[in-house]
Amino acid sequence: MTITRKVEQIADIYAGLQKEICQILEQTDGKAVFEENKWEKDIGYGITCVIRNGAVIEKGGVNFSFVEGEFNSQMERLLGEKANHYAATGISSIMHPINPHVPIIHTNVRYFALDNGTEWFGGGIDLSPHYIDVTEARNFHRALRDICDRYNLNFYPKFKKWADDYFFIAHRNETRGIGGIFFDRLKPDTNISFEQLLEFTTDVGHAYADLYAKIVNEKKAKIFTSEQKEWQELRRGRYVEFNLVYDRGTKFGFESNGNSEAILVSLPATASWEYNHEVKQGSEEYETLQLLKKDIDWINL
Amino acid sequence: MTITRKVEQIADIYAGLQKEICQILEQTDGKAVFEENKWEKDIGYGITCVIRNGAVIEKGGVNFSFVEGEFNSQMERLLGEKANHYAATGISSIMHPINPHVPIIHTNVRYFALDNGTEWFGGGIDLSPHYIDVTEARNFHRALRDICDRYNLNFYPKFKKWADDYFFIAHRNETRGIGGIFFDRLKPDTNISFEQLLEFTTDVGHAYADLYAKIVNEKKAKIFTSEQKEWQELRRGRYVEFNLVYDRGTKFGFESNGNSEAILVSLPATASWEYNHEVKQGSEEYETLQLLKKDIDWINL
Repeated sequence: MTITRKVEQIADIYAGLQKEICQILEQTDGKAVFEENKWEKDIGYGITCVIRNGAVIEKGGVNFSFVEGEFNSQMERLLGEKANHYAATGISSIMHPINPHVPIIHTNVRYFALDNGTEWFGGGIDLSPHYIDVTEARNFHRALRDICDRYNLNFYPKFKKWADDYFFIAHRNETRGIGGIFFDRLKPDTNISFEQLLEFTTDVGHAYADLYAKIVNEKKAKIFTSEQKEWQELRRGRYVEFNLVYDRGTKFGFESNGNSEAILVSLPATASWEYNHEVKQGSEEYETLQLLKKDIDWINL
Repeated sequence: MTITRKVEQIADIYAGLQKEICQILEQTDGKAVFEENKWEKDIGYGITCVIRNGAVIEKGGVNFSFVEGEFNSQMERLLGEKANHYAATGISSIMHPINPHVPIIHTNVRYFALDNGTEWFGGGIDLSPHYIDVTEARNFHRALRDICDRYNLNFYPKFKKWADDYFFIAHRNETRGIGGIFFDRLKPDTNISFEQLLEFTTDVGHAYADLYAKIVNEKKAKIFTSEQKEWQELRRGRYVEFNLVYDRGTKFGFESNGNSEAILVSLPATASWEYNHEVKQGSEEYETLQLLKKDIDWINL
């Protein structure tokens, strides 16, 4: 079987997962519906589902894509592999809520194959609250641990640390949010089969929608002030910084001549930047900043 | 003379230039004054002058810095040079106006020295109108050509093309604005002395403030609609994309552990992103998009 055919089979599964995620998030929002945009370029095709101006979600996207092509020198450098041809499929999603008490959430699952025989899965989920709620963070991490533990007891500790290191805004010396799990180059071996890894990634995708539905329902009615909206805009600014400076999916997308509109649906509708913004010691904003750190054991905090 | 001492001498001149730029821009704004923030880090020091909520300028910064340190492997990769120690000084400035008819302007001049004997000047000016005005663009490029021509007749054509190539948002396939001039690794040789190059960069710095004063005075009273403000926010989004994805000053600043607040004073107070934003054919926005292209001969357009 060529890598193209194999990746197409995974692509069908991920395209199904995309639909399920959109259904759950539409129900969760209760007002807006996803617009579906199919695109095709020389490198492949994708379906970008966009939700806007909902009751809860201000802007969100669920992207599916299947891409393939020549494995060029930039990709070699980026991935440290030698091959002639690559094929990849995945879904990625980010939701930006209206209410600053509702966090931003992100997931990505992907399968990547090279014609040198190398193949792997990657993905993750992470939560970026504008205001960190320790109970919410604990529940979120517990749920991720429970999924990981069904496959391998090493997954959660390893992937939680990986998320802390990956979702880190180095030039701000702060994490993007409370992290979650992140994994890459996950290959089948004697401990875990290809099918189990595929199932693990679809479990991650389902958890994304289910966990966000739960969080939204708990937080969506919470009253917020205009000052809290301003803080949200500043936090969105940091989110933009992460996505444009560090995010590997964005970089890989640009370098592989991907669909820029689809890639950048991850950006919030609005964001702001203020020089040397200061928060009052002891304020909710201050408390959040204290928790934007690596290596916090959220489950036992 | 050590490189430190030599770079300090240039730093004094650039710090004076920073003051002059701030004075002219303050007069131009007519309301807001620059706040001056001195900072010191292990790698050096700087003065960040910030103007906010002016009559014309919503947010702007004029940065001066002097940095030095070990020339590490990341810098080697970035600059393609081998050395042990570097020292650099420069000023950079960006102004984001309130009125969408007034363009965003940017300049940077810098001097860089390595302990292997290599030294060079770099810099440039570019203009990013939210709405391109062909007459304004012509006058802007003429003024830059006139400055360049005083030093070397090859400068303008060479540096204009360089600006087109540099201020380019590849993933959008559009230029950041109407360009201007950009130059790097400009070294003294038999045609031009060190002193002349230094004077060329200070001329660029003065032109920045003078040209912007002129443009602001022509455009600041022009009435704008809320739709034009929305378009400005989207264009600011593109500006953020350029600065975070491509700008070498930002990258070098982050990699050399620079002052992030000073580096990111370049970002607008607010910006927005809309998935697949479409403009009406023939509209002012459409006309602007048609002109966000490389290799337009603005002087003879």
